[in-house]
Amino acid sequence: MPERLVVVGGDAAGMSAASQARRMRGPDDLEIIAFERGSYTSYSACGIPYYIGGTVDDFDRLIARSPERFREKQHIDVRIRHEVLSIDVDACKVHVRDLDNEREFDEGFDQLLVATGARPIRPPLENSDAEGIFGVQTLGDGEAIRALIERDRPRRAVVVGGGYIGIEMAEAFVLRNMSVSLIEKAPAPMSTLDPDMGELVAAAMQGEGIVLHCDEAVEGFEAKDGRVSAVVTDKRTIETDLVVLGLGARPNSELAKEAGIAIGTSNAITVDRRMRTGVEGIWAAGDCAEKFHRVSRKPVAIALGTHANKEGRTAGINIAGGYETFPGVIGTAVTKVCSLEVARTGLKEQEAREAGFEYVTATVDSTTRAGYFPGAAPIKTKMIAEKRSGKLLGAQIIGREGAAKRVDVIAAALWNEMTVDDMLQMDLSYAPPFAPVWDPVLITARKTWQKVEEDLA
Amino acid sequence: MPERLVVVGGDAAGMSAASQARRMRGPDDLEIIAFERGSYTSYSACGIPYYIGGTVDDFDRLIARSPERFREKQHIDVRIRHEVLSIDVDACKVHVRDLDNEREFDEGFDQLLVATGARPIRPPLENSDAEGIFGVQTLGDGEAIRALIERDRPRRAVVVGGGYIGIEMAEAFVLRNMSVSLIEKAPAPMSTLDPDMGELVAAAMQGEGIVLHCDEAVEGFEAKDGRVSAVVTDKRTIETDLVVLGLGARPNSELAKEAGIAIGTSNAITVDRRMRTGVEGIWAAGDCAEKFHRVSRKPVAIALGTHANKEGRTAGINIAGGYETFPGVIGTAVTKVCSLEVARTGLKEQEAREAGFEYVTATVDSTTRAGYFPGAAPIKTKMIAEKRSGKLLGAQIIGREGAAKRVDVIAAALWNEMTVDDMLQMDLSYAPPFAPVWDPVLITARKTWQKVEEDLA
Repeated sequence: MPERLVVVGGDAAGMSAASQARRMRGPDDLEIIAFERGSYTSYSACGIPYYIGGTVDDFDRLIARSPERFREKQHIDVRIRHEVLSIDVDACKVHVRDLDNEREFDEGFDQLLVATGARPIRPPLENSDAEGIFGVQTLGDGEAIRALIERDRPRRAVVVGGGYIGIEMAEAFVLRNMSVSLIEKAPAPMSTLDPDMGELVAAAMQGEGIVLHCDEAVEGFEAKDGRVSAVVTDKRTIETDLVVLGLGARPNSELAKEAGIAIGTSNAITVDRRMRTGVEGIWAAGDCAEKFHRVSRKPVAIALGTHANKEGRTAGINIAGGYETFPGVIGTAVTKVCSLEVARTGLKEQEAREAGFEYVTATVDSTTRAGYFPGAAPIKTKMIAEKRSGKLLGAQIIGREGAAKRVDVIAAALWNEMTVDDMLQMDLSYAPPFAPVWDPVLITARKTWQKVEEDLA
Repeated sequence: MPERLVVVGGDAAGMSAASQARRMRGPDDLEIIAFERGSYTSYSACGIPYYIGGTVDDFDRLIARSPERFREKQHIDVRIRHEVLSIDVDACKVHVRDLDNEREFDEGFDQLLVATGARPIRPPLENSDAEGIFGVQTLGDGEAIRALIERDRPRRAVVVGGGYIGIEMAEAFVLRNMSVSLIEKAPAPMSTLDPDMGELVAAAMQGEGIVLHCDEAVEGFEAKDGRVSAVVTDKRTIETDLVVLGLGARPNSELAKEAGIAIGTSNAITVDRRMRTGVEGIWAAGDCAEKFHRVSRKPVAIALGTHANKEGRTAGINIAGGYETFPGVIGTAVTKVCSLEVARTGLKEQEAREAGFEYVTATVDSTTRAGYFPGAAPIKTKMIAEKRSGKLLGAQIIGREGAAKRVDVIAAALWNEMTVDDMLQMDLSYAPPFAPVWDPVLITARKTWQKVEEDLA
């Protein structure tokens, strides 16, 4: 009889693991069953704002692989609309509810992967269950918001929260020619950036016609006939036809916790570098699993598809009997709001302080191409480096077309624990259509190193 | 009396060094004289094809800093149209010819920087001095070619040599609506790429209407009334109104050699990591100076502005009494021909073999953005990794908009001697407008690592 792997959650982490395990072991050797509460597998949650905004029209293309294809091509028994209600770690079985047929059953496992993802934070506010208030998490959310826009042609939207989802949704509504207000508790949107960089994002958003209310907290919603009609903050009431909540996400770790699996300080499931939980034969990967931050050396919870894919692959290799480790993350992220590109990696100033670092910073304005080349776009790069050692701790980029992806070369340098002094000599590519002769990354490293030296003097 | 630094050559390396030394030491402490044979200082030679093609119209913007500005802002005594004819290393003086006033004189130095650059290779062929045959090296060349195009409206151009300058000039002539033929001795253009990648460049160039003659050698030129009328190869005669030679460049090391300064196997001036030549007090930087290739561990001569700037800065710091080392190069380069972007870093297959490596390769087709996102452009990435260790040795990228600059993240990994196994877990940025969830760099590293494992098995 083949060994049986049960996967809880059919999105990026779960299905990456299942696919990887299948590649290494055939169906006669390893049976794989994946339970997914929703109706879709392996979809691009990050693509939802672009579907809502109309940049992407083909809904099916957001789905990397359907349950049918998993079943036919990879002999992975994916069961959508099946919710795992509990895990019995001693008896090695899960208790499952078939949502469509309202029946419950047990399924035994030899190995179990918990890939339950994360869920949007929804504070308990008055009327928060009114019609027209949405989270942006599942493909179903995306379908519902787009359907509402196309059916009711709402004129006004309020976005609560200025993180990645918040600013991407603000862009989506701008593209739909709606009046958009964004409410952010912090002094500036994009609190994953330092305030000086976040303020530039704020200015650019205002330039796109988005009304920003920062330093402002949502207290509740007004509804008419069960449908949202206004957002109430601590400073004002904003009438609206539609509300999107972008208040961040929380790891879906309750199922594991109730089963006695250890949860970390970040509220995500504790895993070792092979993605093993504290219980033999039980693994976790993706948004529900805790990540090691290589710069702060702290456990963190970050919900991001790219980590979920890598962790899933790592778990899959190990589950199949191979050996792979997940080396951790450094907090790299990128987004855009209208034509403004925004990226970051490593620690922002506050995170560096909290991790015990003393540091210097430098910010440099440059261009994405040689200054004289058509299409040269502005790029502002900020780096944070440890005092004395000059070790890079983090960086942030704001700019126009061609700016943000440069964060990857900084991420590669940070991954390798380079100093900004070493970075400035790196052999990066140069030609006028692609960069100034000193790439913005190199100029910023050079200036940051000057700050390190001045601080030493 | 202040110490005196004499700089031979007023372009990227020379003037970077002069500027850096000036930043560290005032004019009362260090006198700086720079002799430049031509009429311009610190210009973008890499910008010349774009000026000729009309992409860049403002000639003055190709000049980063004029002699007047060096004199006024930095107290650097730049003397253009002054050619240094010889160096007397024992007497510590240079013999100089003032080209406009036809007078010669000696100038003493305490320290000397040789930054004489490189010059295009011009084989001794029949009629190679005919009017209408150009190299592309100095701003003067760029002015002359553009003036000829605007005056005579030539219909046909032949480019000899399919390297960076060659394909950039072919693009320039396409933009001028001219019929362009390109002659290349090798089986494909871009011999800095592997043949399999070079052939794709060839196909793209042909798609732009450029007539390619590969595996073909130029034997001479035909001229009428002293003006070029045809290019004669070993296979045919091609009538033309204009010829551009892009046959590579050779270090201008004769001046140093005649002075008894050691020259390396690459024909460039031997320097240590502080840019010192074998003679006390004499330094070299830029295209005339030999570089250490960090992957092959061989001395190489590469003419590239980005190295010239870094080496100049390094020399300047050391000349001024500071301490800085130049860590070498890894052969990173980027260019484009019409809408095709091309980049490389590290060793190509042949170079890897010559350096004694055994290796595996993998090539991956992907997209620059999520596949479903508008503007997702094709990107083909090839990586070469050492057998067994999986250490990255080199990479090549061919693609459309947004493809080529990704070479920098690979360059940063190569700089840090990463294995492709380590690379595939790197925390690179992801959002649908910027990358697939597995960035092309990561997918290619993953596939290359599979090849390493298969080879081990």
